[in-house]
Amino acid sequence: MSNVTVTFLPSNTAIEVPQGESIIRAAMAAGVHINASCGGDGVCGKCRVIVEGGQVAGEPSERISAEDREKGYCLACKTLVQGDVTVRVPVESTIDTSALQRKAPRRTASVQQIGFEEIKQQGLFLPAVEKIYVELTPPDAQDHLPDVTRLVNHLRLHHNEHGLEVELPVIRKIPTVFREQDFKVTVTLARPVRSSGKTQIIHVQAGDTTAQNYAVAMDIGTTTVFGQLVDLVSGQALAEHGEFNGQISYGEDVISRIMFAEKPGGLATMQQVVIATVNKVLGYLLKQSKVSRENISLITFAGNTTMTQLLLAVEPRYIRRSPYVPTATIYPPFRATDLGVDLDPHVTALVYPQVSSYVGGDIVAGVMGSGMYRTEKLTLFMDIGTNAEVVVGNKDWMACAACSAGPAFEGGGIQFGMRAAKGAIEDFSIDPETLEPMIVTIGNQRPKGICGSGLITMVATLFETGVIDNQGKFDRDLKTDRIRENNNVYEYVLAYRETTQIDRDITINEIDIDNLIRAKGAIYSGCKTLLKEVGMSMENVEQIILAGGFGSYVDLERAMIIGLLPEVEPEKVIYVGNSSLLGARMSALTNSIRQQVVGVTNMMTNFELSETPSYYDNYIAALFLPHTEVNQFPKLQARLTERRALIAKARANKPSPP
Amino acid sequence: MSNVTVTFLPSNTAIEVPQGESIIRAAMAAGVHINASCGGDGVCGKCRVIVEGGQVAGEPSERISAEDREKGYCLACKTLVQGDVTVRVPVESTIDTSALQRKAPRRTASVQQIGFEEIKQQGLFLPAVEKIYVELTPPDAQDHLPDVTRLVNHLRLHHNEHGLEVELPVIRKIPTVFREQDFKVTVTLARPVRSSGKTQIIHVQAGDTTAQNYAVAMDIGTTTVFGQLVDLVSGQALAEHGEFNGQISYGEDVISRIMFAEKPGGLATMQQVVIATVNKVLGYLLKQSKVSRENISLITFAGNTTMTQLLLAVEPRYIRRSPYVPTATIYPPFRATDLGVDLDPHVTALVYPQVSSYVGGDIVAGVMGSGMYRTEKLTLFMDIGTNAEVVVGNKDWMACAACSAGPAFEGGGIQFGMRAAKGAIEDFSIDPETLEPMIVTIGNQRPKGICGSGLITMVATLFETGVIDNQGKFDRDLKTDRIRENNNVYEYVLAYRETTQIDRDITINEIDIDNLIRAKGAIYSGCKTLLKEVGMSMENVEQIILAGGFGSYVDLERAMIIGLLPEVEPEKVIYVGNSSLLGARMSALTNSIRQQVVGVTNMMTNFELSETPSYYDNYIAALFLPHTEVNQFPKLQARLTERRALIAKARANKPSPP
Repeated sequence: MSNVTVTFLPSNTAIEVPQGESIIRAAMAAGVHINASCGGDGVCGKCRVIVEGGQVAGEPSERISAEDREKGYCLACKTLVQGDVTVRVPVESTIDTSALQRKAPRRTASVQQIGFEEIKQQGLFLPAVEKIYVELTPPDAQDHLPDVTRLVNHLRLHHNEHGLEVELPVIRKIPTVFREQDFKVTVTLARPVRSSGKTQIIHVQAGDTTAQNYAVAMDIGTTTVFGQLVDLVSGQALAEHGEFNGQISYGEDVISRIMFAEKPGGLATMQQVVIATVNKVLGYLLKQSKVSRENISLITFAGNTTMTQLLLAVEPRYIRRSPYVPTATIYPPFRATDLGVDLDPHVTALVYPQVSSYVGGDIVAGVMGSGMYRTEKLTLFMDIGTNAEVVVGNKDWMACAACSAGPAFEGGGIQFGMRAAKGAIEDFSIDPETLEPMIVTIGNQRPKGICGSGLITMVATLFETGVIDNQGKFDRDLKTDRIRENNNVYEYVLAYRETTQIDRDITINEIDIDNLIRAKGAIYSGCKTLLKEVGMSMENVEQIILAGGFGSYVDLERAMIIGLLPEVEPEKVIYVGNSSLLGARMSALTNSIRQQVVGVTNMMTNFELSETPSYYDNYIAALFLPHTEVNQFPKLQARLTERRALIAKARANKPSPP
Repeated sequence: MSNVTVTFLPSNTAIEVPQGESIIRAAMAAGVHINASCGGDGVCGKCRVIVEGGQVAGEPSERISAEDREKGYCLACKTLVQGDVTVRVPVESTIDTSALQRKAPRRTASVQQIGFEEIKQQGLFLPAVEKIYVELTPPDAQDHLPDVTRLVNHLRLHHNEHGLEVELPVIRKIPTVFREQDFKVTVTLARPVRSSGKTQIIHVQAGDTTAQNYAVAMDIGTTTVFGQLVDLVSGQALAEHGEFNGQISYGEDVISRIMFAEKPGGLATMQQVVIATVNKVLGYLLKQSKVSRENISLITFAGNTTMTQLLLAVEPRYIRRSPYVPTATIYPPFRATDLGVDLDPHVTALVYPQVSSYVGGDIVAGVMGSGMYRTEKLTLFMDIGTNAEVVVGNKDWMACAACSAGPAFEGGGIQFGMRAAKGAIEDFSIDPETLEPMIVTIGNQRPKGICGSGLITMVATLFETGVIDNQGKFDRDLKTDRIRENNNVYEYVLAYRETTQIDRDITINEIDIDNLIRAKGAIYSGCKTLLKEVGMSMENVEQIILAGGFGSYVDLERAMIIGLLPEVEPEKVIYVGNSSLLGARMSALTNSIRQQVVGVTNMMTNFELSETPSYYDNYIAALFLPHTEVNQFPKLQARLTERRALIAKARANKPSPP
């Protein structure tokens, strides 16, 4: 899809957005405020704009009169840009906020993943499973070699394959498959982790099927299960799909899952439920990619320690009991069908190793997939999902910890918090003068609640505009009905009842903000503690790798405003997306990951923050916006001073709203 | 049980037999003839003897009058010796045959198996699975090692166990089992074939169970399945049990089994049926030994190529089709439960490798179990069962072949042939003068038919006494109703209708004898051909190892009389019983067998006799009793001359029977 330019008047602010984007999202990205509180459902009718030039599409709204429609009026939330477009924001929908406008597009972190070309150039493209086509000489009266011996001898002589192992299920296929196309066959080889190990012949197929060799990579998250179907010939991901982990119905976090698993039959249920999700994702991947199930040779899994143990039906109860030991950190390869995975019986399953009970295979996969394990730069790796884990270090050493961040980033503990799903407010801005909100929801529906990234954006914006102070308290002097006291708690109304899906006002209150501050404080102080324990500080950090489903949506600048991330140059921040999934894919593509991962895991020193004395002080200091020591955020400090002056000036020039 | 001496009068022949033996069997062993044709069921009433001294037991027969009973008369078949006994054979039951009496007890081959002590002395007692008891330090706040790492580290540090592998099912047991007895556990280790391989931890149990470590060894025969329960601590076999292979209902020989397996669903049926037999045998072994199923760690299988492929559900159709290639010769270890074997999931199964389609794992197991693979003597190994296979060679080289002997030795192709079961005539002698038979059946029942060993004995005895000639034809001049023509075929009546279970006369005819001659000719000429192909002859043979279920019952001297075995000194013949079962047991007890078996298998050069030019000539020459070249049997030749003179003299002195 090509990009188009949307120019907003009267501010004359231009932004490039993908063709088909809605005007309200373009305005959000450009930092142009348009009043809106129904999330883009066309209900509140506040986001009226005038299209002065260019092609747009979208259903006409009843809330716009025929007369106005002819003048070019439309609802910004319902109108999609089809080419370069000029949009005027009428005075009733906004005021001039160009003074506050951000210069750079929102998502400043560069997305970086190890590319397939890079792997190839480094000679690391060694899939864990490989196909070889062979033309065997059929047996005759002078040559009675058994079928298996015939194959193994041929592979030794002509392909330099030694010490091959053939398991019983493959032996069972051989006599028939060999004779289907006169002893012309394709064998699938599963490579050992160590070169001293044995290569296994896991599959035989008649004829030449070497062009079809696929793997599935799966990230088993506490909240979501994401899968990719990977072409082991081209190295490309042919399909990707995610589903909520079916275990969600049994509890939101790992602890509640473990507690359920402790009930009679609970572990089996937990395992079956997540496998059902895995199979659902698999089904989509196969449908999407049109790959035949028979040509999938490998599945790789990455997940946190609890998710891994539940996936493998390994008793998790000691993960949540002092002294918090996991059962194992390394799991051997096994047959995918042994877990109930809906693939052919020859498919080998690989599972990422764990570090500890709370730093699991998802983090290890992230460290491998992001390339952190190969960098010389002092790196801060942060994976913020249902749990938050941080790793500091480089190719020579690593320290890691799990942060008790709580579920705020997933909407947990927030009055109107919800997961990132349709109807969740994911973006927010505020008119600094009228204090009217502009909200955008996922799916452009009327709002139902607030998701994690929306919450960060809100708190950052409210703080930046002085609506809340550095302790997260509302400015009691502001004149707006949007801020009010409710049961002794101050709150801001994001959307009134009539414009929501839930028949109630949707608000954010001081308790919500406090919970977010505690969560970000736990993560920031976790990083600081790790660095301090190895004799370093935030200033030494040369790059930040942001990972996790949550990381996909967080706005870097706003994450720095609230003090979730340390203040660094945006170019030092690398966003790797779902690094667990990335790592799972990488281990399918290059056996060198598998060869090195055990060493890396052993190198990762785990810190139990609750047992690390400096942690508590760091935590208390982080319970402010952005931090007690605001000098750790010098650029923010300068900007805040400047912006607040502008806002104060703007407010002084304007009469109070009626 | 202690032995007692039975002295027969008037010949004054003494023999030592186990206490509780019947008088008729003692007479048979001593070569004392007593007329008897009902097999020991007390029906024919012919075997009247007088107990003149000593203690006997047994039910009194109605066929003996009270008066006679007081004189000591009883039926030899129904009377059991309890101490040293003197028995007079009255003239009506016998004549003096002392001239023909054999000097040595019948079974002259020494039974020899590798002893456990020998294995221990040679430092070879290295079971394929081993138990180790460990007391681990439980985790605490300072020691968060995962359970599996804790175990593996301990075994490395304290037991010098390196490169351990732990599979998923064991990992699943670990968290609970470790905490049952405060981290005091017994681990079961499965050793790799090669020292370069990895040892697997296959089981964990709470507390110290090292004293209970057992294996099951199974011989999967075409006709029978024999199992032994082996104590891997003491090396002793605690129980042994055999059952008919349930596949018998689907065909007697391997070809008919393969044909059945080729039908839709046939292979699955064949596999399930033999597994059902295996499980039946297992049940008996567990009951007999009172061993807990949980402490069985290993099962080892040996069987011919077809039986092995059917056991493993590996398509057998190409075994019976030119160019007769088996699917595989070597099978990797696998989980016993994967086959449906009724043992715990941790149990490792090992299968003996094959040489070719018709020299299978049973023969390889025999070569290993009998120690042939370690001897310097030129050895002839013969396994005569449903199939007959021969191996010649020593520790440096071996040649082997399957002989198309047909099923005569199992009673197949014989008019009244039957398997060795109750009612089968298994022993036979003949009054050289009256030509009246003395027969003994298995289970002392009225006869139903003739089993293989009975057939050999009959043919040898009939030949030795001149009743048949060296082509197996009856002497038409003999005066007895027992020899008669029936549908143009001459036959000898073994038992008349009234004394059988089948309401018919049981006979042996010239076609039966011809079939036996062809069978023994195939085996003898097979041996000769192999020897010739390697530039040797029968004279070079330094020892004969006799194996197989059939071998258990064959009488050495009689086997030489018919020319089934070459004529050698009895002390050169070693009888090893069910060598396949022996080999299966040995591979459980000492890993050195497993380490060497692949090399031995590779060394065994397989000859397809039908494609070996010298075979046909050898076969034709062997279609005589004992052989065309009777000078190959010099001692027999001398004895025959002497005996026949005696018989002729005896017959001349006696009037013809009425």
